[in-house]
Amino acid sequence: MRDGKAEGRANRRKRETRARLLRAAFDLMAERGKDAVAINEITEAADVGLGSFYNHFDSKDAIHAALVADVLDGFGRALTAIADALDDPAEVLAASVRHVVLRAHEDPRWGRFLLAHMLSLSTLAEGMGRYLVHDLVVGLDAGRFRATDRLMAVVAVGGAAAAAVAVAIQMAGSEPRDFGAVEGIELRGDRLPERTASAALQILGMPAEEADEVARRPLPPVALPIAS
Amino acid sequence: MRDGKAEGRANRRKRETRARLLRAAFDLMAERGKDAVAINEITEAADVGLGSFYNHFDSKDAIHAALVADVLDGFGRALTAIADALDDPAEVLAASVRHVVLRAHEDPRWGRFLLAHMLSLSTLAEGMGRYLVHDLVVGLDAGRFRATDRLMAVVAVGGAAAAAVAVAIQMAGSEPRDFGAVEGIELRGDRLPERTASAALQILGMPAEEADEVARRPLPPVALPIAS
Repeated sequence: MRDGKAEGRANRRKRETRARLLRAAFDLMAERGKDAVAINEITEAADVGLGSFYNHFDSKDAIHAALVADVLDGFGRALTAIADALDDPAEVLAASVRHVVLRAHEDPRWGRFLLAHMLSLSTLAEGMGRYLVHDLVVGLDAGRFRATDRLMAVVAVGGAAAAAVAVAIQMAGSEPRDFGAVEGIELRGDRLPERTASAALQILGMPAEEADEVARRPLPPVALPIAS
Repeated sequence: MRDGKAEGRANRRKRETRARLLRAAFDLMAERGKDAVAINEITEAADVGLGSFYNHFDSKDAIHAALVADVLDGFGRALTAIADALDDPAEVLAASVRHVVLRAHEDPRWGRFLLAHMLSLSTLAEGMGRYLVHDLVVGLDAGRFRATDRLMAVVAVGGAAAAAVAVAIQMAGSEPRDFGAVEGIELRGDRLPERTASAALQILGMPAEEADEVARRPLPPVALPIAS
């Protein structure tokens, strides 16, 4: 009984240490990129001894891989929940895009981390891009989307979403910032998630009015878990 | 006469040292990002003494700013030459997009450097995005493009171009690499510049067939200078 309790405590502390290391690595790597972060910076930020790091991870690459897997896992669960809750493939794609942009705005570190992994071919096969590819193909096969060049449709929608994530990160913060205007175009992020979703649907051949309507439908309730 | 020669030689050597430092910083920062590069790594790669660095630049931020200015300057000259050579605003936009994707494929370091600065709001006002904004507004005002939401049109076209640059970088290399297929979509980069330009025109409301035609017109001759 006492031994069981002691082991439970030891396990809990080990889990907590691992979580603190992951959180610290997440913050540092989201800010500066993996290459610019040293292991001792992670352990200092996590308030953990340097030796403890190696009880949990073999290397900086190993903790980075664990972070990518964590973020991807949470991302996948959210997008699967959205797809399960909706019938219209266009609404699924719109809600997924809105989720990503909204979440990047609410948690800019998550957004930065995501952005570093969004623009890559391998993401289409193994990473977060595979959800986009799947939603796109479902919508095309259902006749809801049009695309003569499917790869370019994925690149264009993924790129537009990535650019919107970058804007959402920059516009995040407690106070709305004024970015002014360029050649009469106001740099305002109001309703950015819905506007990005509408743009994505228009890229896939949907008329603007219908795309706006689909992009404004109520979102299914999906939790926004903080990574790790 | 002899003094003039000596001064000419000293100036030339100074210019060459500066160029070597810039080239080394460009390579290292394109690979790893500014924050992950130390000044002594730059001087070692440039085969220049550490003290010489400070004859040319005050800090790492200063050499990075010089690089950004160099890349932006070359980028601006190429895009201005394209705009000057063509009349149709759609052709200007298509040729500009093709230039960027093509150049990223031919010089992946340049592409990586560009990518690090493409997805930012400030780029729309001061950086490379201002060329896109200008081309877009000219095409809209000429009735050649359609966009109900001009900011989202910029974000979508810029994002699509950035994603294509990322693909071009990955597909660069002496041998064509096979990236396979995902859900029946072949990850092939043949004619990527033209396909990206066509996608950009379609985002701006042009029918696919016309967009493909505009995106395949002969490019005006524009030099592809290597940065710095």
